Amino acid sequence: MTELARKALLPAGLQDVLPGTAAREADIREKLMSSFAHAGYDRVKTPLVEFEESLLEGAAPELATQTFRLMDPVSHRMMGVRSDMTPQVGRIAATRLGDAPRPLRLSYSGDVLRIKGTQLRPERQFAQVGAELIGVSSAAADTEIVLLALEALEHVGLPDVSVDLNLPTLPVRLFDAFGVAADDRETLIAALEHRDVAAVKAVSGNVTDVLVALLEAAGPAQAALPKLKKLELPLGASEELHRLIEVAERILASDLDAALTIDPVEMAGFRYQTGVSFTLFAKHVRGELGRGGRYRAGGSGGEAATGMSLFMDTILRGLADAKPVERVYLPLGTPQREARKLRKDGHYTVAALEGAAEAKTEDAARKEARRMGCSFIYLGGQIVPLGA
Amino acid sequence: MTELARKALLPAGLQDVLPGTAAREADIREKLMSSFAHAGYDRVKTPLVEFEESLLEGAAPELATQTFRLMDPVSHRMMGVRSDMTPQVGRIAATRLGDAPRPLRLSYSGDVLRIKGTQLRPERQFAQVGAELIGVSSAAADTEIVLLALEALEHVGLPDVSVDLNLPTLPVRLFDAFGVAADDRETLIAALEHRDVAAVKAVSGNVTDVLVALLEAAGPAQAALPKLKKLELPLGASEELHRLIEVAERILASDLDAALTIDPVEMAGFRYQTGVSFTLFAKHVRGELGRGGRYRAGGSGGEAATGMSLFMDTILRGLADAKPVERVYLPLGTPQREARKLRKDGHYTVAALEGAAEAKTEDAARKEARRMGCSFIYLGGQIVPLGA
Repeated sequence: MTELARKALLPAGLQDVLPGTAAREADIREKLMSSFAHAGYDRVKTPLVEFEESLLEGAAPELATQTFRLMDPVSHRMMGVRSDMTPQVGRIAATRLGDAPRPLRLSYSGDVLRIKGTQLRPERQFAQVGAELIGVSSAAADTEIVLLALEALEHVGLPDVSVDLNLPTLPVRLFDAFGVAADDRETLIAALEHRDVAAVKAVSGNVTDVLVALLEAAGPAQAALPKLKKLELPLGASEELHRLIEVAERILASDLDAALTIDPVEMAGFRYQTGVSFTLFAKHVRGELGRGGRYRAGGSGGEAATGMSLFMDTILRGLADAKPVERVYLPLGTPQREARKLRKDGHYTVAALEGAAEAKTEDAARKEARRMGCSFIYLGGQIVPLGA
Repeated sequence: MTELARKALLPAGLQDVLPGTAAREADIREKLMSSFAHAGYDRVKTPLVEFEESLLEGAAPELATQTFRLMDPVSHRMMGVRSDMTPQVGRIAATRLGDAPRPLRLSYSGDVLRIKGTQLRPERQFAQVGAELIGVSSAAADTEIVLLALEALEHVGLPDVSVDLNLPTLPVRLFDAFGVAADDRETLIAALEHRDVAAVKAVSGNVTDVLVALLEAAGPAQAALPKLKKLELPLGASEELHRLIEVAERILASDLDAALTIDPVEMAGFRYQTGVSFTLFAKHVRGELGRGGRYRAGGSGGEAATGMSLFMDTILRGLADAKPVERVYLPLGTPQREARKLRKDGHYTVAALEGAAEAKTEDAARKEARRMGCSFIYLGGQIVPLGA
């Protein structure tokens, strides 16, 4: 490895974001956050690290294995680097904003760090943008969060978005109702994950009929809903399914332009959800745009909540590249006052610098302007196109 | 400690940023970044962690003691959590942007983490916003960075900004030129830090006259410049001082409305600067707004560079609080389409939610709107002020 390559080497799953992309990410992030703000979601900012104990409280055990630990030399207690911001926002809602009126609508953006990437998401640092609706357990709240995500994605111009509605708690609830043995549960969960109807059928017991029916109902909402409505499920499971159906119908009744599918037995990737959940995709874009769903803010005893996180990397992959900024080259001797006026008027300037390549003639200045990637040059008080 | 207080407890120097403040910070940060962008500075984003070796390369030894370390389970190498973004930007300039045309103008924003706070800056996490001008060693470049900071601070409306120009390498250069012994150096550095003329004079040798003259020259630029111009310094030191004088005169010649002071022997807080440096203050605001100066990008053998970092916490303290957003309450039954149109038109809405406090009459809706902190209510297709 050369010295340069060695210096450029970053740990796996971490990256430098270069000009163009970094500006684009910030722009889209702030547009998403603005969309949340206009729907009444108040921005909060959580710390990069906090005590392990509070960071992991109420979080899925899975999160603990994903979280880097640091020793705090001040308190001599262990801290964790945030690997998901949702539990932090839940903590803020329960503590500092415990007395704020409910429903409490909060939004956040920031980077999180994970110990290991996954095959689907090799990044170990990624930017989350999210919103949480805390203190309400209704289907209207479930729906608001889905529509909020869709409106924000529409606002940044992401085309062909689809929502997959899920009920990640349903399989376990069915296992409980039908008294499925522990071994069979594992087999069934693996079979559901692979959408393997034959493997589900291979397990004996009444639960298999229901699971097969749920697997076969999965698909576009218009076709799935009538099938799901016909299903008879045990108490508890039935209520959950009807909540899912109600949310699906509310989303369909909105006029947001997104495809809706339902996959009631999808469990993968939901870490702390306790009810109706969803995953967002866009046609031709690899990976999820985001995911969310119902949970308890602050852990199992906490307030009813629903929320979602959007993933900046996937969203950026789904958007056309930003048009590069057109810049105006300011030759040596351009008065500061005029330069500032151009910038105030919205122009992007690149000033010639004494001590750098000094272009003393107009021809040389035009050449230098091109070398610096400018499209225009400021000559005699005018912005002049550089041409080819 | 109650359970709630325990949950709310964060490690010393770390904090939750609450509604209002978090939005304000993001808004001001993006305005500063926009100001840099309009002056041709390209945004980059650096990773939260990277290999310790590259993170600390070219950084002051002081930085190493401020940096949290993590073991990377993928590579089994030590990583560091960024405690300053400037060395990371220098690394990007030297590697990924090694072939980009010079001068290279880069900007960045992000949070950094330090192991311990200082008395002046007890925060251990704080948001930096900065810009680096790489590949030019001229006085014009030194000046550009100072004026860039001033223009950005003017853009966010921060009043009464002042610049203190410094030359943190000057004392050591003088010690070398005058052959000052190691013990005396320590005494003199402490004396300079406390601006203690008597303590400087107590050290014998020719260097004291020069140091006292420099201490006594310090102050507003208009008065300091004639005094500094009269000083005769040994070769090397003299060149540095004349660079400082040239930069001061260039700043005075610009018409930006900031007070300029010169303190040529100020060394405190400069970690890697190699030439003309500066600190930014605002009247009536505790602490520095930012600091910067000349350095070598990528360490001692690296490219000529100058740059600066602004500190979001101090800047926010210097600005009036943002006016709270005025919100429109949308009673139950407001059509989604109308709600979206209001938001598209720039309004901030708070939608009534089935399952939350349901206000079925107009009076109840008005009461609920007030409870939710709204200033307006949407009734009969109109935005109506709520009144008192």
